[in-house]
Amino acid sequence: MKQSMMFIPTLKEAPKDAETLSHKLLIRAGLGKQVAAGIYSYLPLGYKVLKKIENIIREELDKIDCSELLLPALCPADLWKESDRWDQYGPELMRLKDRKNRDFCLGPTHEEVITYVVRDYLNSYKKLPLAVYQIQTKFRDEMRPRFALMRGREFSMKDLYSFHENAECLDRWYQVVWETYKKIFTRCGLKVKVVNSDTGQIGGKEAHEFMVMSEVGEDDISYCTDCDYASNIEFSNLIEGNKCPKCNGTIKVAKGIEVGNIFKLGTKYSDSMNAKFLDRDGKSKSVIMGCYGLGVSRTLMAVIEQHSNENSIVWPKELKPFDLHIICVDSKKKEQLETAEKIYAKFKTKYDCLYDDRIERAGVKFKDADLIGIPYRIIVGKDVENCQIEVKDIKNNQVDKINVDQIENEIDILLKRNE
Amino acid sequence: MKQSMMFIPTLKEAPKDAETLSHKLLIRAGLGKQVAAGIYSYLPLGYKVLKKIENIIREELDKIDCSELLLPALCPADLWKESDRWDQYGPELMRLKDRKNRDFCLGPTHEEVITYVVRDYLNSYKKLPLAVYQIQTKFRDEMRPRFALMRGREFSMKDLYSFHENAECLDRWYQVVWETYKKIFTRCGLKVKVVNSDTGQIGGKEAHEFMVMSEVGEDDISYCTDCDYASNIEFSNLIEGNKCPKCNGTIKVAKGIEVGNIFKLGTKYSDSMNAKFLDRDGKSKSVIMGCYGLGVSRTLMAVIEQHSNENSIVWPKELKPFDLHIICVDSKKKEQLETAEKIYAKFKTKYDCLYDDRIERAGVKFKDADLIGIPYRIIVGKDVENCQIEVKDIKNNQVDKINVDQIENEIDILLKRNE
Repeated sequence: MKQSMMFIPTLKEAPKDAETLSHKLLIRAGLGKQVAAGIYSYLPLGYKVLKKIENIIREELDKIDCSELLLPALCPADLWKESDRWDQYGPELMRLKDRKNRDFCLGPTHEEVITYVVRDYLNSYKKLPLAVYQIQTKFRDEMRPRFALMRGREFSMKDLYSFHENAECLDRWYQVVWETYKKIFTRCGLKVKVVNSDTGQIGGKEAHEFMVMSEVGEDDISYCTDCDYASNIEFSNLIEGNKCPKCNGTIKVAKGIEVGNIFKLGTKYSDSMNAKFLDRDGKSKSVIMGCYGLGVSRTLMAVIEQHSNENSIVWPKELKPFDLHIICVDSKKKEQLETAEKIYAKFKTKYDCLYDDRIERAGVKFKDADLIGIPYRIIVGKDVENCQIEVKDIKNNQVDKINVDQIENEIDILLKRNE
Repeated sequence: MKQSMMFIPTLKEAPKDAETLSHKLLIRAGLGKQVAAGIYSYLPLGYKVLKKIENIIREELDKIDCSELLLPALCPADLWKESDRWDQYGPELMRLKDRKNRDFCLGPTHEEVITYVVRDYLNSYKKLPLAVYQIQTKFRDEMRPRFALMRGREFSMKDLYSFHENAECLDRWYQVVWETYKKIFTRCGLKVKVVNSDTGQIGGKEAHEFMVMSEVGEDDISYCTDCDYASNIEFSNLIEGNKCPKCNGTIKVAKGIEVGNIFKLGTKYSDSMNAKFLDRDGKSKSVIMGCYGLGVSRTLMAVIEQHSNENSIVWPKELKPFDLHIICVDSKKKEQLETAEKIYAKFKTKYDCLYDDRIERAGVKFKDADLIGIPYRIIVGKDVENCQIEVKDIKNNQVDKINVDQIENEIDILLKRNE
């Protein structure tokens, strides 16, 4: 993609209300832009990374036989009244009326709608288990939206729902999703701790949260320094210096960003919404359910928070917005321009390239390139007179001077080595 | 994908309110399900096809240097007041208040929001032209939602916006999008007529619509039998038998489904919302805009409407939900099951396969397979005792008996020939 045609509105200064590194860089690198409090646009570069996160999620969920669907954002109040959440859910639920005065909400989560959608179909144990998910824009009218997409009012979430004939099947599946979540976050370059948690407004019997440890997190996590024990502090009451209930090790307390949560719902929704099936003995029973959320836009923020320094995002391998950044230092100089165009033409069929063809000062181009953080940079500058161009590896800040004729070979080796 | 794990709720009977072939098949083939009037869920099979349409759109728009972003669904009233559409737009606009009593609408189209998002950036002719698009769930509170996703209240749309320094640049770009739209619809298996149209609630100077001719269309189109002249009848006043204004040929009138529209907006939004740039002479001017809609969910419906018969969808090549449908006729018979599993294991890494492993009667499996319409079918039945399986080509209804050992070779040839 030619950078002159891509909308990447980088900024020298972060907005004043941006308190966290990820919020600052989201705006400064031109990944996102606020439209109203807690409501953001994903700009082309940010959306490209968001779609990479989405595709990692799809790949890993496909491997465990989940299928993707898309439920409506507009949820009829009637369904939420069946589960009684229409009255229970507070002002976070965005409500509206249609032109015929019927009540709807904008779904913050979709237990009711999915139960409605599958309940006629799931009439026999033969149809179970079943697992379906969606990646969708969700709405929650937060009192205090914060840190850009970290706690927004309109955000992207993956929500998965599973249906089972008995608790054992749910238990097995819950473990499968747990392991899959670890794989997803690892591929996104995030280390997570899994903590016990409260079941909150979703309800159910047992729940866990996936936490990225970070100073800007909003939850207090007590965790063991010697084993994998971790818990939301509200749930465990363990404080710094306590003994770990699992291994007798020492408890520490730190902040965490909640990037995922998993719930054993049991029959909360199937009981209230009459989702019944005939079991192997011909008896009518309520379907056993699980639900599993993963914050897609929040994961993007957690990645930026963990992988950046003040003026630069260093993307995890699988989330880099482009493979290569080709920079023509002075696009007004014929020789530089011609060489850069040739290199771009050569590589664009092979790699995903951003080519900075803009008529801008070199300093602007380099500052933008640092912010954006594409892992490899080909710099076509005045050395092109001596047939030399520079190749920069961002991670180790190494710059090599390469002969123009060698560039294809060098880049192939560099990118293959780091695949 | 194993069919036992995929949620495809096929039905023998269409719902009573389904008047059109596409509405009936959407429901009967388990592609979609109504949640409220004009509000549908896309089920896994339907969503798979919808994503294929989306990807065709992305591929073609990427080729012409557009970049994808995602704007919020919740649009602040303040922006709509700048363009004066907050008062002009009728009850189709879904409005709501947040917990702090601020007004929002659910975007049916995003001229205001995109103008807001780019206006600070587009401060110089150097930044122009620019073209950005999104594929997004849109909302329009139709008085009479009809024909399922054909005229829904929550639907999927691609909306593209372009920004230019002068009218000539917009004119050139308008033609480029026009040609790209034709490519997109051709790849989706649709023949379209391009008609003159009114600029309606979007506004602007000139507009065209892309129409799929169909009895279930909601627009009356007058078109010439001898040349490519076509117009929305409201706009041309030409009736059946009139002379074509372009070539003197004969005018016919027929119904059309509007799948796309393109508008030369000019400065309607940039004037009212103060989107100015400095031109080559250092003068401040309003940015010239174009906008280009494409109904993604409506395209899905038009495809089903045009490519189906009563009990079967025959997908256009690029939109088939899977490459191959492997059917085990009796999954309780050990020999059939083992052979089918082997064939599935062999092909699933190579092709996108749906494998019917369900414990269901053969009649149910075949009826479902007809409805779903995957182009090639491998049928593992009782002939497997003689090492024979059947390969069916749906389009020409041809069935070949193949030796089990030959299956890989046969399928490779068949699928390669029809790529």
